[in-house]
Amino acid sequence: MHRPRTLNHALATQVGETVVLQGWIHRRRRLAAVTFVILRDRSGLAQVVVKDAGTAQHVADLGEETVVAVTGRVTANTAAPGGVEVVDPTIQVLSDPAHTPPVELWRPSLPASLPTVLDHAPVTWRHPRRNATWRLAAASLRGFRDTLLAANFIEITTPKLVGSTTESGANVFEIDYFGRQAYLAQSPQFYKQTMVGVFERVFEVGPVFRAEPHDTVRHLAEYVSLDVELGFIQDHRDVLAVLRDVLAGMVEATTAYASDALDLLDVRLPVVPAQIPLLHFRDALTLVGADADEPDLAPEHERALGRWARDEHNSDFVAVEGYPTRKRAFYTAPQPDDPQWSNSFDLLFRGLELVTGGQRLHRYADYLRALDERGASTDPYESYLDVFRHGMPPHGGFAIGLERWTARLLEVDNVRETTLFPRDLHRLSP
Amino acid sequence: MHRPRTLNHALATQVGETVVLQGWIHRRRRLAAVTFVILRDRSGLAQVVVKDAGTAQHVADLGEETVVAVTGRVTANTAAPGGVEVVDPTIQVLSDPAHTPPVELWRPSLPASLPTVLDHAPVTWRHPRRNATWRLAAASLRGFRDTLLAANFIEITTPKLVGSTTESGANVFEIDYFGRQAYLAQSPQFYKQTMVGVFERVFEVGPVFRAEPHDTVRHLAEYVSLDVELGFIQDHRDVLAVLRDVLAGMVEATTAYASDALDLLDVRLPVVPAQIPLLHFRDALTLVGADADEPDLAPEHERALGRWARDEHNSDFVAVEGYPTRKRAFYTAPQPDDPQWSNSFDLLFRGLELVTGGQRLHRYADYLRALDERGASTDPYESYLDVFRHGMPPHGGFAIGLERWTARLLEVDNVRETTLFPRDLHRLSP
Repeated sequence: MHRPRTLNHALATQVGETVVLQGWIHRRRRLAAVTFVILRDRSGLAQVVVKDAGTAQHVADLGEETVVAVTGRVTANTAAPGGVEVVDPTIQVLSDPAHTPPVELWRPSLPASLPTVLDHAPVTWRHPRRNATWRLAAASLRGFRDTLLAANFIEITTPKLVGSTTESGANVFEIDYFGRQAYLAQSPQFYKQTMVGVFERVFEVGPVFRAEPHDTVRHLAEYVSLDVELGFIQDHRDVLAVLRDVLAGMVEATTAYASDALDLLDVRLPVVPAQIPLLHFRDALTLVGADADEPDLAPEHERALGRWARDEHNSDFVAVEGYPTRKRAFYTAPQPDDPQWSNSFDLLFRGLELVTGGQRLHRYADYLRALDERGASTDPYESYLDVFRHGMPPHGGFAIGLERWTARLLEVDNVRETTLFPRDLHRLSP
Repeated sequence: MHRPRTLNHALATQVGETVVLQGWIHRRRRLAAVTFVILRDRSGLAQVVVKDAGTAQHVADLGEETVVAVTGRVTANTAAPGGVEVVDPTIQVLSDPAHTPPVELWRPSLPASLPTVLDHAPVTWRHPRRNATWRLAAASLRGFRDTLLAANFIEITTPKLVGSTTESGANVFEIDYFGRQAYLAQSPQFYKQTMVGVFERVFEVGPVFRAEPHDTVRHLAEYVSLDVELGFIQDHRDVLAVLRDVLAGMVEATTAYASDALDLLDVRLPVVPAQIPLLHFRDALTLVGADADEPDLAPEHERALGRWARDEHNSDFVAVEGYPTRKRAFYTAPQPDDPQWSNSFDLLFRGLELVTGGQRLHRYADYLRALDERGASTDPYESYLDVFRHGMPPHGGFAIGLERWTARLLEVDNVRETTLFPRDLHRLSP
């Protein structure tokens, strides 16, 4: 048997030929005179028709999820899924017969609660809808990188073990590092900024860690951050323009690399307008009828802005610039004509915050002033701040949470559904 | 001044035009009648010629590494680097004048010890040779992914916070996870294996953590692991074939995306043969004159094999298969005809181990047996092993350390030179 393996999705091109398929028994249906075996491989499903009594008995003993090789003849059958099926099969078991799966994977939707799905993640990800979910996440990642590489960005990898906390001291995991105190990085913020001094345009895809005590559908203790930073900008709007292109690239990549997943999940693909609608924070407050002295946008404000963008601009995205400087991270550049506002933005996707970004301070003295104004010590930042004495260009950037992106794209509420193995207050396995 | 920025490497296409350059003052040379400013940007160096006395005085006040915009006219000059230079410049400072860099970055080689270079990493990476080093690492990453995506692999991201240690219990960083004991993942081994059950072919690029007490040129406490795993293999040689293609893709990518970096560092690019020379462990021992009962290859044996591969096969790579099963990780598949040997391999690059890989066990009972034979408990592995009851195909994979790859490619001894911000027994910053 030295035939090369045929993938299920290629069956239609091999009608009349004898092929070898390999995959998982997705479902068996035993009728009076015939047993149907639905075989699943990475490319999709295929129907195998068993009429031989011995083979049917063999199949009866092989539970769903058993891994098999099927050798048989491809025939056209308009009634079969994909218009083809495999007949007269011989079936070889490549692993042990599988135990009954914790959840019936052959049902169109997973018939289980989210905790059960997550407890059995290594198996439940095999469900076609779950599989499609991750394939859209992976395609998005690909689109993210492709867009940035085409725009002359370079990928960096920065350490997750750090000697001081780079952002707020809260929510940080502590670690014993050869007898010294260390922390898990909450973001690659300072590293990506310093690398602008080297490569001008950088990105990183990597885990970030938040000892997040909130048990919500939007928070994880570990998530994948898509970080971007670029130099020689005029202001935050140059950053927003790059973000726009990145989002467009991510959407396009889902079409290019996972269109079947889009179809299966019936995804309402967002349109990324050439110019993302942009409001000043001040005007956003007015628009949603909030008090002019509100320091931030509440969730209902964000939802209202999402509706406004959709209704007025036919856009699933809207950006808000100019958030109050005192409410943003200390490295945020103020708005030059009125420093109470900042050159930063949030991007909302369907009424939920997806991305935070903006222009950063790039002068050493400005960092000292910003930390002083917040009553913060420079001590934890010494080794990072030093670079700003050695010539840093005006720069800015943003970060997208991969899991949130996928959740928004698929319009699911809980980011745990779009994370391969989520980590939260209660969950540390599998 | 609304001219778009011109990158230094594009100057030769704009002779006679007035352009705006932006970058760092890399070097100044003041002669009697003229001052030369070498400007550095992400694309390379450019020469700016200052004759105006006022501008020359301005430049004298701007230290190396000051960030500037230069507006001037491009003229051909065969004596200038690249055959062009910018004359009659006006120079605008985009940041504060820079402090004197900790190391003279304009010298052809960094005139500093490795500790000094690492202590000032955010600045020293600006040196063209360091910059080129990382660009080759980044290009390799790109080649790694491109090769695998073209071969139908899918990218995964798996958690670095884990509830049990997945490999040996030694060298693991412990962490307080909301009052529970957790660990930093030493590898994504089990996750990538379980995901073969979902996607058949997966890869991951991410940090791994080793509480490595050895202070050597080859060990880091955190490094970037390029992990690959694939299902429906015959044995480990199918894995080795993928590794061969991945290495070829990585080498090609350095040429495609960073050929100037190859030139600058005078890299002796390896040839990846269509078939990587392959020896059985037993025969490797004989070849290097070691005792037949040696349990592993010593460094001098690996060097001897490297010389053999170069001399006999004109190859910078050689693979050794069949390492003694008891010396390999418990999930390693034994050689079917003689289980004292294993279906695993090491790949040596220029006489040093770069990659470990092989076929894994795929039956639940085999895992129980392997752990039992090693006197190990199944407890830490319960949540991972469960998937092997639910149909896992024959599979295998490998992992490449990015920093080691780059070090071998550039023929530098110390992996700290090829890591943006290395972490080791003594170093936790910057």
